[in-house]
Amino acid sequence: LIEFSWSKTEKTIARAAFDRALERELKAIRLEVQGMLSRAASDRVVWEILDYLREKQREVDERYDFRYSQLVRVFAILVREGWLNEDELAGLAPDKLEAIRKILSIR
Amino acid sequence: LIEFSWSKTEKTIARAAFDRALERELKAIRLEVQGMLSRAASDRVVWEILDYLREKQREVDERYDFRYSQLVRVFAILVREGWLNEDELAGLAPDKLEAIRKILSIR
Repeated sequence: LIEFSWSKTEKTIARAAFDRALERELKAIRLEVQGMLSRAASDRVVWEILDYLREKQREVDERYDFRYSQLVRVFAILVREGWLNEDELAGLAPDKLEAIRKILSIR
Repeated sequence: LIEFSWSKTEKTIARAAFDRALERELKAIRLEVQGMLSRAASDRVVWEILDYLREKQREVDERYDFRYSQLVRVFAILVREGWLNEDELAGLAPDKLEAIRKILSIR
């Protein structure tokens, strides 16, 4: 893994993109819980919601790692999973964008 | 603890009361989750819901113990917590109803 250095501007762009992806994911989780509640005939749906949220918490904890050593990998995953658009990373240095695209092209 | 014997009729009454209490509790949990969702401005409410449901699952697992050796104690708790009315236990033998009232009078 290449160690990148992050300029102050890049750190600001990274933080904003990271937070935006997390907000989107939280909104999607909330909408899914609302959907489960409104679709379910049985009140036992609360245990399905519990299982769903446990799994989502595990995923989110694992995915949202804001260490600069991890961030290129994290952004590649967020783009691949649809939580970020590549153009929301505009302003990062070309070496990082290139590294992100490389990861995206592999998997 | 006194060991009670349960007639077939009593077992039927007990099962119905137990299931009714659990249904009411599940309905209350579902309504609380719906309330949390509708009141919350932030999507982070999903993590509050997760904590709430974890705690409720722990409580429900602990409380709803349908062993005949535990049932008098369980019913006393369900009456005390408002999930059952005493008259929904009508048809149980007087010794059991007496034991339930005794527990209710102590705590």
